[in-house]
Amino acid sequence: MNIELLTVGTELLLGFTIDTNGALIARALGEIGVRVVRRGSVGDQEQDIADAVREALARTGAVITTGGLGPTRDDVTKRAVADLFDAQLEFHEEIWQTLVERFARMGRVAPEMNRAQAEVPRGATVLRNRWGTAPGLWLEAAHGLVVMLPGVPREMRKLLEHEVVPRLVSRAAGRVVRSRIVRTSGIPESLLAERLGDIERRVAPLSLAYLPGYEGVDLRLTAWDSTPAEADSALAAGVALIHERAGHHVYGEDDTNLAGVLLDAARQRRVRIAVAESCTGGLLGKRLTDVPGSSEVFVGGVIAYDNAVKESLLDVPPELLQQHGAVSEEVVAAMADGAARRFGVPLAIAITGIAGPGGGTDAKPVGTVWVATALDGATEAMRVQLPGSREEIRMRAAQAALLLAWRRLAAPRRRSPH
Amino acid sequence: MNIELLTVGTELLLGFTIDTNGALIARALGEIGVRVVRRGSVGDQEQDIADAVREALARTGAVITTGGLGPTRDDVTKRAVADLFDAQLEFHEEIWQTLVERFARMGRVAPEMNRAQAEVPRGATVLRNRWGTAPGLWLEAAHGLVVMLPGVPREMRKLLEHEVVPRLVSRAAGRVVRSRIVRTSGIPESLLAERLGDIERRVAPLSLAYLPGYEGVDLRLTAWDSTPAEADSALAAGVALIHERAGHHVYGEDDTNLAGVLLDAARQRRVRIAVAESCTGGLLGKRLTDVPGSSEVFVGGVIAYDNAVKESLLDVPPELLQQHGAVSEEVVAAMADGAARRFGVPLAIAITGIAGPGGGTDAKPVGTVWVATALDGATEAMRVQLPGSREEIRMRAAQAALLLAWRRLAAPRRRSPH
Repeated sequence: MNIELLTVGTELLLGFTIDTNGALIARALGEIGVRVVRRGSVGDQEQDIADAVREALARTGAVITTGGLGPTRDDVTKRAVADLFDAQLEFHEEIWQTLVERFARMGRVAPEMNRAQAEVPRGATVLRNRWGTAPGLWLEAAHGLVVMLPGVPREMRKLLEHEVVPRLVSRAAGRVVRSRIVRTSGIPESLLAERLGDIERRVAPLSLAYLPGYEGVDLRLTAWDSTPAEADSALAAGVALIHERAGHHVYGEDDTNLAGVLLDAARQRRVRIAVAESCTGGLLGKRLTDVPGSSEVFVGGVIAYDNAVKESLLDVPPELLQQHGAVSEEVVAAMADGAARRFGVPLAIAITGIAGPGGGTDAKPVGTVWVATALDGATEAMRVQLPGSREEIRMRAAQAALLLAWRRLAAPRRRSPH
Repeated sequence: MNIELLTVGTELLLGFTIDTNGALIARALGEIGVRVVRRGSVGDQEQDIADAVREALARTGAVITTGGLGPTRDDVTKRAVADLFDAQLEFHEEIWQTLVERFARMGRVAPEMNRAQAEVPRGATVLRNRWGTAPGLWLEAAHGLVVMLPGVPREMRKLLEHEVVPRLVSRAAGRVVRSRIVRTSGIPESLLAERLGDIERRVAPLSLAYLPGYEGVDLRLTAWDSTPAEADSALAAGVALIHERAGHHVYGEDDTNLAGVLLDAARQRRVRIAVAESCTGGLLGKRLTDVPGSSEVFVGGVIAYDNAVKESLLDVPPELLQQHGAVSEEVVAAMADGAARRFGVPLAIAITGIAGPGGGTDAKPVGTVWVATALDGATEAMRVQLPGSREEIRMRAAQAALLLAWRRLAAPRRRSPH
């Protein structure tokens, strides 16, 4: 089954809003074998909406719209589509009562203006919206199918999941587009490609995409136009092959977060963690505490932005700072060691570096970062040279530190020389 | 002048990529008075691209495409448009030489495949791309105007700025769409709307949009279809009126960051800052150190995730923790006080709260957060009840703490009672 998407809203034409609804709908439909063949955006003019819907129906026979279902004069999607289907708008007392109750729960009286949201084109199925005021609408006739959803992302997502996808599943032909992502870190895209070698041929007809980002390089395998069973088994084989070739650079799949992987490894080994951060200024702690339940493992840390704090709270000897500078193997190791002692934990992770834009020198240019771990009294440090803006360098630095710590926990007997 | 946008790429139809190019182009064109009246996306099929471009030209007479200019077989935008204009593709030796040199600089030989990128539809103007391999193309005929840009965001942006906008400026009628944003924090949208009262009428014909987010409510004023001078003076008057009515809830404009505002105020008063974070786990330190040059003012902090750290590093008396719990006025004040002493700074900012998803009680539900400042030995604390997910609560908590600190620094004589 093919379908088009039409997102409605003058905001989209002005570029004030980035259209995330379209991508979300496309992915959800791909999963169930409904293929989006075209996308469009128009402003809040009734005529433009009617034209775009008519064109989409002529081309493809089915369209999902988002936006323009609110209570204000700008919200004209429903009227435009109703006219196109020669369907009169009828007032639904039941929808209105739901709205009245919804407002009452917030201690408010439903504004008269919102009565328009209780109007339904004759013949349309109402898609109940428990997450907002605008119900979705499913209108089908000889012209084709129009599904109207609200533009608020959360409401749109819920209606899509609960009301639209189940109805489309029963019509779709059973061919799907599915993908899986394997996440790697600590290896540049070009080296990873060398390691993977002829993998693209081996996993065919799956396609393989390299998606480099601040957390590493993600590898996306996609099965096109398969049955669900074919797709799943081909993807499983492809994922296994990547694991085999990329080895310990792989830390997870899909939306796995390296901080979560590290916390899980620490929980298993009953190891508690502290951090000592200079250039990341709290970002490493944030990454770890983003994960719900991190308090079981993560104890706390010191943000040692100023060198005096490295001395006073992390017990870094002043002569190390003087002799080697704050961005050095000696200092990062002392920071990790100091944090482990200060917090009384077996594993401490430290970062110091030059995030820029200022502060770089010839010997230590912007992007020079040292990360270290102290595990059971033994420290291990690693220098990385990170590209990008201040923000990117900081994100990459936190990721490098998480990776070092995870590898040490996951493979405690392997030691790099430093 | 009206124009349409067409983004080309099967990735966009699958939802693997979110289309940020469209929004960026729309904003840039609005600034110079070129109005985007419709947007569309199609896949990498030549026929679909040709159809979409033909329709756009029939409707509007001008279209900008992005994507499909790369060297692979998928990249068919140029061929589709050339056919539509009956323009033969001609090989440009000069473009090819530039490509050859570009590859040589990277120590590589230009692949034969890339020769396709040196082909230009007869009659087209080449928009030189110094940031990548695919030149842009400007093709104009009786049919109308087609501007083809590469899909890589960075290259697209550069070509837009350097090659497209200057050419369009000279054709546009001189009417523009401009907007300014006033940023507020610490006041809910509904209360803000009450305070602003009849402001929408007062600033007409400017439009006013409320944009609530994790950092507060942004107010966007937009001048539509004005001369640049009219727009600027109407916007200045509107911004002044908002300042007058919203008072100390306003902390800045456009992309001003509250962390930067606080750091500036501290720099002016020669006050250095430390933080003590529990539920935000480093996020407050991250916010402050996101700002380049923050090291002049920001000293460091303690991430006191575990209560033992609150005692050992922030000297919070154990009996306070026992009696009132970690999320309490007494503890947050002691954290701020302890941090100020420990780091020897005049201003310390502390946060403790329940970010969820677990850990809530009837008396202290998820979202209960205490923030405090210690300034020159005097502490001030504030309880906030924050909505949303764990991530949202943490972001709102950091913002609330920054706001409290900034207000104290900016208006040191105002004191709330406790």
